[in-house]
Amino acid sequence: MAEPAKTLDGWYCYHDFRTIDWPAWKQLSSEERDSILKEFLTMVETWDATQAKFEGSHGIYSILGQKADIMILWLRPTMDELMELEGAFNKTRLAEFTKPAYSYVSVVELSNYLPSDKDPAQDPEIQARLKPILPKWKYVCFYPMDKRRQGNDNWYMLSMEDRSSMMRSHGMIGRQYAGKVRQIISGSVGFDDWEWGVTLYAHDVLEFKKLVYEMRFDEVSARYGEFGTFYVGQTMDEDDIKPFFAVQE
Amino acid sequence: MAEPAKTLDGWYCYHDFRTIDWPAWKQLSSEERDSILKEFLTMVETWDATQAKFEGSHGIYSILGQKADIMILWLRPTMDELMELEGAFNKTRLAEFTKPAYSYVSVVELSNYLPSDKDPAQDPEIQARLKPILPKWKYVCFYPMDKRRQGNDNWYMLSMEDRSSMMRSHGMIGRQYAGKVRQIISGSVGFDDWEWGVTLYAHDVLEFKKLVYEMRFDEVSARYGEFGTFYVGQTMDEDDIKPFFAVQE
Amino acid sequence: MAEPAKTLDGWYCYHDFRTIDWPAWKQLSSEERDSILKEFLTMVETWDATQAKFEGSHGIYSILGQKADIMILWLRPTMDELMELEGAFNKTRLAEFTKPAYSYVSVVELSNYLPSDKDPAQDPEIQARLKPILPKWKYVCFYPMDKRRQGNDNWYMLSMEDRSSMMRSHGMIGRQYAGKVRQIISGSVGFDDWEWGVTLYAHDVLEFKKLVYEMRFDEVSARYGEFGTFYVGQTMDEDDIKPFFAVQE
Amino acid sequence: MAEPAKTLDGWYCYHDFRTIDWPAWKQLSSEERDSILKEFLTMVETWDATQAKFEGSHGIYSILGQKADIMILWLRPTMDELMELEGAFNKTRLAEFTKPAYSYVSVVELSNYLPSDKDPAQDPEIQARLKPILPKWKYVCFYPMDKRRQGNDNWYMLSMEDRSSMMRSHGMIGRQYAGKVRQIISGSVGFDDWEWGVTLYAHDVLEFKKLVYEMRFDEVSARYGEFGTFYVGQTMDEDDIKPFFAVQE
Amino acid sequence: MAEPAKTLDGWYCYHDFRTIDWPAWKQLSSEERDSILKEFLTMVETWDATQAKFEGSHGIYSILGQKADIMILWLRPTMDELMELEGAFNKTRLAEFTKPAYSYVSVVELSNYLPSDKDPAQDPEIQARLKPILPKWKYVCFYPMDKRRQGNDNWYMLSMEDRSSMMRSHGMIGRQYAGKVRQIISGSVGFDDWEWGVTLYAHDVLEFKKLVYEMRFDEVSARYGEFGTFYVGQTMDEDDIKPFFAVQE
Repeated sequence: MAEPAKTLDGWYCYHDFRTIDWPAWKQLSSEERDSILKEFLTMVETWDATQAKFEGSHGIYSILGQKADIMILWLRPTMDELMELEGAFNKTRLAEFTKPAYSYVSVVELSNYLPSDKDPAQDPEIQARLKPILPKWKYVCFYPMDKRRQGNDNWYMLSMEDRSSMMRSHGMIGRQYAGKVRQIISGSVGFDDWEWGVTLYAHDVLEFKKLVYEMRFDEVSARYGEFGTFYVGQTMDEDDIKPFFAVQE
Repeated sequence: MAEPAKTLDGWYCYHDFRTIDWPAWKQLSSEERDSILKEFLTMVETWDATQAKFEGSHGIYSILGQKADIMILWLRPTMDELMELEGAFNKTRLAEFTKPAYSYVSVVELSNYLPSDKDPAQDPEIQARLKPILPKWKYVCFYPMDKRRQGNDNWYMLSMEDRSSMMRSHGMIGRQYAGKVRQIISGSVGFDDWEWGVTLYAHDVLEFKKLVYEMRFDEVSARYGEFGTFYVGQTMDEDDIKPFFAVQE
Repeated sequence: MAEPAKTLDGWYCYHDFRTIDWPAWKQLSSEERDSILKEFLTMVETWDATQAKFEGSHGIYSILGQKADIMILWLRPTMDELMELEGAFNKTRLAEFTKPAYSYVSVVELSNYLPSDKDPAQDPEIQARLKPILPKWKYVCFYPMDKRRQGNDNWYMLSMEDRSSMMRSHGMIGRQYAGKVRQIISGSVGFDDWEWGVTLYAHDVLEFKKLVYEMRFDEVSARYGEFGTFYVGQTMDEDDIKPFFAVQE
Repeated sequence: MAEPAKTLDGWYCYHDFRTIDWPAWKQLSSEERDSILKEFLTMVETWDATQAKFEGSHGIYSILGQKADIMILWLRPTMDELMELEGAFNKTRLAEFTKPAYSYVSVVELSNYLPSDKDPAQDPEIQARLKPILPKWKYVCFYPMDKRRQGNDNWYMLSMEDRSSMMRSHGMIGRQYAGKVRQIISGSVGFDDWEWGVTLYAHDVLEFKKLVYEMRFDEVSARYGEFGTFYVGQTMDEDDIKPFFAVQE
Repeated sequence: MAEPAKTLDGWYCYHDFRTIDWPAWKQLSSEERDSILKEFLTMVETWDATQAKFEGSHGIYSILGQKADIMILWLRPTMDELMELEGAFNKTRLAEFTKPAYSYVSVVELSNYLPSDKDPAQDPEIQARLKPILPKWKYVCFYPMDKRRQGNDNWYMLSMEDRSSMMRSHGMIGRQYAGKVRQIISGSVGFDDWEWGVTLYAHDVLEFKKLVYEMRFDEVSARYGEFGTFYVGQTMDEDDIKPFFAVQE
């Protein structure tokens, strides 16, 4: 048996993708729409308060394409809080005008492939990466992934040394995108259908393509990467929400 | 032909995953909602009575993510009872506000890979494992799985000796999680689309991830495991049901 | 080119799986429900009359799990009759309260892998197997399957001799379940999406699991079997139909 | 690069599979149903007129099983005409009582694997095969297929000589079914999701199974065939349409 | 690690496939339909204005088959503009009578497999290919694709030299179709579920089949191509839109 990787685990993540039922939304009076958005924005204020206390983080995103219209992403210290957030949102009036499109359950993860001599519990940089306040960079990208276990391309049968060496080379590519792409890796083994979720942020959306394409030539992805559905969109500030839902009378 | 594994089979299991139709549920008056939940909780009392007599067991769980909102899990000595329970629940008023999300039919199973010199019919520990009262641990995880039959990675072409040796090593990992994770393996060959269902319980939800990830590096999973959809959630006591369904007026 | 297997083909089979729309069904008055069931049972009487003349056979089954609530299985000498039966059922009032879940088109098949020196057209045992009156055993199981054509595991590239030898060994397992499991193999190459449908009957539902699991270690299944969805349920007598559809007022 | 096969291409084909919304259909008055069928049959008359001028062909079929209730198949010299036919049918009242089930876009194709010394443009037999009037044989079967490109089983990496030799052997099987099965091969590379559509006609539905099963042992299918969904049904004359849609009052 | 290909990236692309809800559309009065189309055509005029300024391009297409009825394709310098276009269209009244069928997010891409000694930023031909005004050729074809990463057929493990050599041979085939087929390759790594989208235009729809089939025998496609769903249809001028949506009273 190959030596398992060890992980540090931080905040729990819930990615919630929804499509908007525009025909139903448009049938409402503008008063009703305002009232529904007000209820939602009041809820968002409570999330803001949590984030202000560094007890979690969240983002709201508009997604391009038919796969989803919006994504809400919550990070919290416990999965219990995510369940409460999901339940509370499901009971809002806004939720009635959305349909589930995709969701993902995971936990922010750092692996021991990139070794460190620091005590993670004491290291503020590691703590900040495990409990990240989501950046307000303009673009977001999300996709889930697996490491392949197929014939001769079986990641989990490789030695720790081989995996570490490949992961280091992989990390080198990522480092070239410092300042251009921020990535949050969250582990989902035992929680959801893929092994990891990857959430990327960029100022220039093209950097997502450049990074993911360059990495695809790296052995870790080329031989061992299996990729799920890709979602790409924009960060929405609270000020963007009303225009996003605005309907011309 | 490889020597088949032999199994001991206990109680039949029915995992029933549902999503809640929140918009329809919210349209009800609070009196209607109360009355519907009362009908449901009365039905749950009959399940409790069965469990009190050790003639079966059950659990009700809230599930995180869009794949399902709740899971009901019933264990009974016969499949007939499961069919009655499914039919009866389908005819409740609460069921009208749920949509089927996933279900799984299986039977609690112990295999002879981990040999014993005891007579299983007389051994109280084995009997308790075959007819388990479901633990009230805080978190639950469910996933179905197969053993792979693909090219050189064909579990069913291996000798009994090779399979037993790998299963023993696999079992060693599980044993390190004693007290942290309880697992119920149920066999579903001939009953449902995967070969086994795995139901895990933990006090700390992170233990699911640790266990499943560690096992993935073990040859049994690395080369021979095929995994279906993962569901994760919380055990609901009867006291949790009303708050779960509560709607703010 | 490998020598093709030859088949004897008997009655045509139509497996029709449906889910019940319980919320709509419950909204009916009990008079309406009675009248709808009466119409259905009158139709069932015509099927009974056909079976009494040995001009076909049929069964009605309740299915456990969300994949389907009922299965109707018709066997007839011609596919034309199946099309009429399907059309007539689709026009009943009961059908309005069902939704299609799965269906399968096939024809009862015996292969020449298990050779015989008898003239099949004259042999009453073979004729009875080709034109079977469905047993009223308590439990039913259905799944479709293929023989694999993948890399080195390509059934259709094997010699007739190798295939026959493997099928004989496979048949030996089946024979050990005589009296416990009855199986009807129906071929569907050119008719439906898998190559065969397997319909099993048992007095003890656990025998399905034992048989299918034991066979999975046999090379025919281990290397060459590809399996579709499994359905398991109970035979319904006509007396069972009213209780199955009964709604508590 | 392997030498590509060359093709002769004839009439464009549109296979349109629909399910009938029987509950909605039954709610109509018999006058409405008559009127809707009259509108449809008037449209069919225009198709008949086209066929009488040998400017296309068409067939209407009832399909067994839940995958579809009817198939309409149109052949026309241009794809433009198919688009018009699809659009016109979509706007009929009958179409309101159908739901899309599957469709296929292709063009009748003859390949140069079976060489000929004739000038195809002058050869009446070849022209008749490229622009076929669909036979009124009793049964129809449709399935799409690919040639495999997988590891060592990669059709498109074989030499022209190897492919031709295999296709000739394959054609020999087909020829044994002359008079029993008529087949129309239509190419769909660049038009739809599979590479070919296969439409078969027979007087005896069992011949579909015999032909397709026998061919499966031939290397072309055994190693290189990938098959999609199979549909089987009956040719409907115009006289069959009213009974097919008839509802007992 | 293999040397990654480098790309030039031009305008962002959004392919939006929709089916029309004909029954609902037909229920409208002809005044309502006119008014809805007028709103839509007014929106199209703004797109025309953008294109007239060479600040983007667009096309509207009717699609044959049940997979979609129409495709709208927008090209813009930024993804932000695509998000605005999608949002604005979703809020039109016409959108209420459509259902999402498929969508694709990508960016026009030229790769360095076909080397050039020009400075791309200065080269008007390259700029025109990166920022193409969509041709008004009669037929359109769209499909997404991947380069395979499977066992010995792993594109991303090949050397730059091998990939370049194969891509050159591939390009030679394409060049033979100059004047017959125009192709726009758009990259979608990091944006959508496949690695590229291919949009083809032709005067004769048969050229799509010829090109794609011929290329399939080329090693790049034969060994390394994985293809998604194919859509084929016709370019609609603004004059074609009213007839397309016309309903006979």
